[in-house]
Amino acid sequence: MPILDDLRTLFGDAHVLTGDDAPQRDWTGLYRWRPLALVRPGTTGEVAAVMRLAHEAGAPVVPVGGNTGLNGGTSAEGALMLSLERLNRIRTYSPSARTITAEAGVVVDVLHRHVEGAGLIFPLRFGASGSATLGGVLSTNAGGANVLRYGMVRDLCLGLEVVLADGRVMNLMNALHKDNTGYDLRDLMIGAEGTLGIITGAVMRLEPAPVAHATALLGMADLEAALALLNRVQAGTGGAVEAFEFMPEAYMARLARVKPDLACPFAPSPVNILLETATTITGEDPVARLETLLLPDLEAGVITEAVIAQSQAQRAKLWAMREAAAEITFTTPDLVDTDISLPLDRLPGFVERMAARIGALDPAAEILMIAHLGDGNIHYTVYPGTSGPALKAEMRAAIAEQTVALGGSFSAEHGVGLSKRQTMARHKDPVALEVMRAIKAALDPKGILNPDKVLP
Amino acid sequence: MPILDDLRTLFGDAHVLTGDDAPQRDWTGLYRWRPLALVRPGTTGEVAAVMRLAHEAGAPVVPVGGNTGLNGGTSAEGALMLSLERLNRIRTYSPSARTITAEAGVVVDVLHRHVEGAGLIFPLRFGASGSATLGGVLSTNAGGANVLRYGMVRDLCLGLEVVLADGRVMNLMNALHKDNTGYDLRDLMIGAEGTLGIITGAVMRLEPAPVAHATALLGMADLEAALALLNRVQAGTGGAVEAFEFMPEAYMARLARVKPDLACPFAPSPVNILLETATTITGEDPVARLETLLLPDLEAGVITEAVIAQSQAQRAKLWAMREAAAEITFTTPDLVDTDISLPLDRLPGFVERMAARIGALDPAAEILMIAHLGDGNIHYTVYPGTSGPALKAEMRAAIAEQTVALGGSFSAEHGVGLSKRQTMARHKDPVALEVMRAIKAALDPKGILNPDKVLP
Repeated sequence: MPILDDLRTLFGDAHVLTGDDAPQRDWTGLYRWRPLALVRPGTTGEVAAVMRLAHEAGAPVVPVGGNTGLNGGTSAEGALMLSLERLNRIRTYSPSARTITAEAGVVVDVLHRHVEGAGLIFPLRFGASGSATLGGVLSTNAGGANVLRYGMVRDLCLGLEVVLADGRVMNLMNALHKDNTGYDLRDLMIGAEGTLGIITGAVMRLEPAPVAHATALLGMADLEAALALLNRVQAGTGGAVEAFEFMPEAYMARLARVKPDLACPFAPSPVNILLETATTITGEDPVARLETLLLPDLEAGVITEAVIAQSQAQRAKLWAMREAAAEITFTTPDLVDTDISLPLDRLPGFVERMAARIGALDPAAEILMIAHLGDGNIHYTVYPGTSGPALKAEMRAAIAEQTVALGGSFSAEHGVGLSKRQTMARHKDPVALEVMRAIKAALDPKGILNPDKVLP
Repeated sequence: MPILDDLRTLFGDAHVLTGDDAPQRDWTGLYRWRPLALVRPGTTGEVAAVMRLAHEAGAPVVPVGGNTGLNGGTSAEGALMLSLERLNRIRTYSPSARTITAEAGVVVDVLHRHVEGAGLIFPLRFGASGSATLGGVLSTNAGGANVLRYGMVRDLCLGLEVVLADGRVMNLMNALHKDNTGYDLRDLMIGAEGTLGIITGAVMRLEPAPVAHATALLGMADLEAALALLNRVQAGTGGAVEAFEFMPEAYMARLARVKPDLACPFAPSPVNILLETATTITGEDPVARLETLLLPDLEAGVITEAVIAQSQAQRAKLWAMREAAAEITFTTPDLVDTDISLPLDRLPGFVERMAARIGALDPAAEILMIAHLGDGNIHYTVYPGTSGPALKAEMRAAIAEQTVALGGSFSAEHGVGLSKRQTMARHKDPVALEVMRAIKAALDPKGILNPDKVLP
């Protein structure tokens, strides 16, 4: 292939990998492919050079970050995989302006550590943050466990640098909170999963670090009581709830089986909630405040079990229970995994109806839920009791259908990738799909950027 | 014109106004035009019908809201003005989900009043809220006085309904906080000033109403001290600063002249700050907390004057001083008005350098600033001492140039409209402009939607 020769001339053999040296599956193992090659440019200019060559040759290009996606967004059959891993510099860091400018290949945990000690945090928090990269979380508009407090990745991004399909570099590297200079191209590129351009760098917003946390694991009988508690704690702390995570009994059972050291410290309740509040005000005691807010539910027996972390180590252990989710989910590879969101008041009804529908399709199926409950966001997984792709497709369709019927979204924070394109075709507004296709055609007329992803 | 006959057939003469019955200027009087007609459809379906006719005829269409824009965004020479005023229904209101779904013609203050009493607020706050409409504030991504706490209009919007150039209706009416189903078309339409589609309805986010406010007017010697105070009050209240507005001595002087009943209650200082904090926690006393936080600056003489509102009436009066800004600015029509934003640490330097540059251009010029200081957003107005359009153009260019040189934006919250298109050409990233043009051509191939606006 002449394009491979050109790339080798530009970058050397070490950065153009082919055959078995190039990745051929994602981390879940659910998606497999044979790429043309993996190329590793080292700068934005080099990414642009790759895109100019690919554009000329009409070669498909799949941008790759930390390989932690769940929907096959980096599957790359016959395509050039463009890894951003060498774009791993922190360009500027301004604690006083509370911004950090970093390249796409910087790992999320590197950002966390970089700002530690300056009284700041980069808020994004989720299990894969030790591998996921800034470019990846921007391209999928990732969420995580504290969206309730700090928003999605979109809300944390002030500026972007993007290489377009033909190699032009678009500079939206702005560090301002207010900027109305034409169309919002930044938010168009965020969440586009590399189909409209390749994000090479970004200016990210930092937040004041809480000076103290209160972290509790609570056992409760039902979701309604948990949602009422969420409202009460939000009101009683002035919106200081950092996380409100739901781990049902079945999740705790699987956790105890796969990761016994992370087993629930009490006999799991039907509804187990990881609740964290925080304060940025020196001298305030969020633990005392949380205890006061929990007291009525404890006395009334609405909260049946409660553990409040007494140290950072205990806090870390409670979080480890939650952050093991992806790992314990994918230990059984024959599964239907989804990522949906619902209006909060529809959640209990969804859980009940969905269990009945799954049971009707396959009485031996097992359901595993883990939810960012405060955002209405459930990772709903089914392990079929009977195997076969047709049943799994039916389950997937039923989950999407039930979600949309209750005013929810069939893709909350993991993106569309390959796995939800058919759901897009079935449930997304048809005019919106036409507009997306028109934009895709305008920005990538040859259709070389992450082909077959997002758009059905 | 056959299109006028068609429109009259559809809507009746009462809703198709021509000649002097149609608006021929904006409220500032700086922009004047002769429109083809003003048409007033009453539903989304009727807006779509107008657009189908206009698209077929190739007739330019300018959507119009409350006529409070400042950049000529509704100037409509020879165009069909499409008023959204009859789309004024509140479709659904869910206090428990904290959302309200309303049509584009609903006036912002109507939204404020609608949610009063349920412990909720629609946060958007600015002087023109008695006339500005939901469609208008979405189309310009308006800001206002409490962006610091609640964000821009973009941050308050969950879902949109948009009529496209050819009359197709795009339904993005989602009430979810997490939704990653394809490209972010909502944010693309917000702030596009009616050039990509006509917003006909939206789902807006509501926030818990503060149960108590602390509102103070402070006199200080310089901006650096004011910015240090802002940081201290943010840290000491856990980010509960609702507004931090800067009114310099010259603003107070003009206020005393034009609106004597709103004159500053103390001899104006060089820097006068309207500071408001709030709490949603019952029983908390934000006034006591604010007094404690102000004390060190009062004792050190950094704050030289201080008035803290003791009643809602006093609070309203302090706000009236701020909200008279547009009115007192435009009483002298020979002016250069701009709307810029800067990184906070660059603000003092900007103010100093800009004064020198304006003085060099025109020693008799008067400068009037009013700023959402916490957002780095200054409304910078110059009244030339010497008249002539060339000098004004030079001043406008100098302000934009100095802003961009310090890492700022030449359009913070008022949009681009007609008046900043040349600045877009000079200062916006050229690749970003190309991408905007490609999107415009893809969504409005005949160029009929608000022609000549936003894009140079």
